[in-house]
Amino acid sequence: MNIGVDAMGGDFAPKAVVLGAIDASHELSKDARIVLYGDEVAIKEQFSLNGGMPSNIDVVHTTQVIDMGDSPAQAFTQKPDSSIVVGFTHLKMGKIDSFASAGSTGAMMVGCMFVSKVIDGVSRPGIGTVLTTKNGGKVMLLDIGLNVDCKPEVLNQYGLIGSIYSEQVMGVKNPRVALLNIGEEPEKGNSQSKAAHAIMKEQGGLYNFVGNVEPKYLFSGECADVFVCDGYVGNIILKLCEGIYSLAGDSVQSTEIVAGFNYEKEGGTPVLGVNNSVIIGHGCSSVLAIKNMILQAEKSVESQLVSKLKDAFKSI
Amino acid sequence: MNIGVDAMGGDFAPKAVVLGAIDASHELSKDARIVLYGDEVAIKEQFSLNGGMPSNIDVVHTTQVIDMGDSPAQAFTQKPDSSIVVGFTHLKMGKIDSFASAGSTGAMMVGCMFVSKVIDGVSRPGIGTVLTTKNGGKVMLLDIGLNVDCKPEVLNQYGLIGSIYSEQVMGVKNPRVALLNIGEEPEKGNSQSKAAHAIMKEQGGLYNFVGNVEPKYLFSGECADVFVCDGYVGNIILKLCEGIYSLAGDSVQSTEIVAGFNYEKEGGTPVLGVNNSVIIGHGCSSVLAIKNMILQAEKSVESQLVSKLKDAFKSI
Repeated sequence: MNIGVDAMGGDFAPKAVVLGAIDASHELSKDARIVLYGDEVAIKEQFSLNGGMPSNIDVVHTTQVIDMGDSPAQAFTQKPDSSIVVGFTHLKMGKIDSFASAGSTGAMMVGCMFVSKVIDGVSRPGIGTVLTTKNGGKVMLLDIGLNVDCKPEVLNQYGLIGSIYSEQVMGVKNPRVALLNIGEEPEKGNSQSKAAHAIMKEQGGLYNFVGNVEPKYLFSGECADVFVCDGYVGNIILKLCEGIYSLAGDSVQSTEIVAGFNYEKEGGTPVLGVNNSVIIGHGCSSVLAIKNMILQAEKSVESQLVSKLKDAFKSI
Repeated sequence: MNIGVDAMGGDFAPKAVVLGAIDASHELSKDARIVLYGDEVAIKEQFSLNGGMPSNIDVVHTTQVIDMGDSPAQAFTQKPDSSIVVGFTHLKMGKIDSFASAGSTGAMMVGCMFVSKVIDGVSRPGIGTVLTTKNGGKVMLLDIGLNVDCKPEVLNQYGLIGSIYSEQVMGVKNPRVALLNIGEEPEKGNSQSKAAHAIMKEQGGLYNFVGNVEPKYLFSGECADVFVCDGYVGNIILKLCEGIYSLAGDSVQSTEIVAGFNYEKEGGTPVLGVNNSVIIGHGCSSVLAIKNMILQAEKSVESQLVSKLKDAFKSI
């Protein structure tokens, strides 16, 4: 398997990407290779400064970079030899099995929607994040920002998508899928969550819906394995936790939960519902974040997540 | 001034209420009295077990209690001698200047809407909470759950209401009012927050709007004094913080921010936009929470918050 990584993406590229790739290269399975897209000279310089290029890493030279200031859609046509465009082209051709970047989120999304394209039957792709719960457990929260005015039917689809992710990538058997809501009773919430609850309850066993769960149980790990919410709410939660983490830090044991808010531990956000494995990293990704983003991509490919998602949406 | 308190409200009533009232009675200003509503025998028994009744506390005997199982609207007519109904009647008559209860939130809201009634010009009342920020600062977040499908115009009104609360009760000069949102740019957010931003920006200086602020700055205290959001989002945040607090606790210094999530420190949630000072306490209010709820009621009356709100909405 080949894991494509944008070496030019992120605030500390290419250095953090090269160092993260070196760290990941030691932990990859035997048949996995990392393919770095970016300026070959700059990338190789980083390798020589850091002990040389491991044998399971390749470099594909690209000459352009999509900047944060570029219009994502325009950049995709105006910068055909950029690391992100070449990465998506190779992904589409099957030269790589996954593509990850901490660069322009907008350009990554253009690649997802117009190159990889949405899986048949999926209304709107979503992005998810894996949260660390009490006692080191893991839960998935989605959508965390791609879709900020979700129709209730879309929240129902996120239930199925999250369930498949949890089962295939996180190894949870028959994952409990909850609708994140401000009350447990079906009639609680806003108009969106009330309608979503009704649909999720009646979806006919495509996934294991456990009802509404309040955010106070998000990190307890007791009530659900997957939490579905509107992308606006999910993004609010993500950025709130980011703020708490930056203020409280992870310096002491008692802040186990807060320490879990460190985005570096997961490394990236999978785009779920498109025809390829795509992972978007945090703009300020550190070496650790890049390493974990690459290992997350490996797990996503290994688990055949995308074909499982395609099969699930074919049958409904 | 007379501060009415429902002695029968909350999971640990009347004991916690009596003990909280005793603690508060020592800190009240000279002209302030606490009026407890509830079963006189049960209340006086608690006083005799705890050193007697302070001279600045009165008791109004009531014979009924609105339970959590009661329909709030029906209970208001079916239990006319309940502590909450008598409390609101006295509030309306001017016998007390504020009414606080940790009992049935539904019944308290019925009292707000049908006895106190909404201030002329206010579209929808809201409820707010005061959050502790880094370095011990305070910010107000509203709405935190009364209004879960806010129209953008209502968010604009919450800007004004929050600004007046911050200035009058919290003593902030020219408070900075932010729209809590997932991005700083005006065009970020969902359809509701985009529309709200446009209205808040053009409200003509009724309050000091500083634009969108992301939730990562909610607890930093650097960007705003008042955060306006939809009640659904506010309630999600509140319950998320409650969960983090219950898992992480406040055992060590480094969790200063998390320790601030302890609802007991504020004691109650003011209902903002009705013609009286009304404060709703947490169902499981402790002695400390009750004490702080009473002191918060005193501050609200002292600051003449309600008449300031009335004046503000009269002039627009």
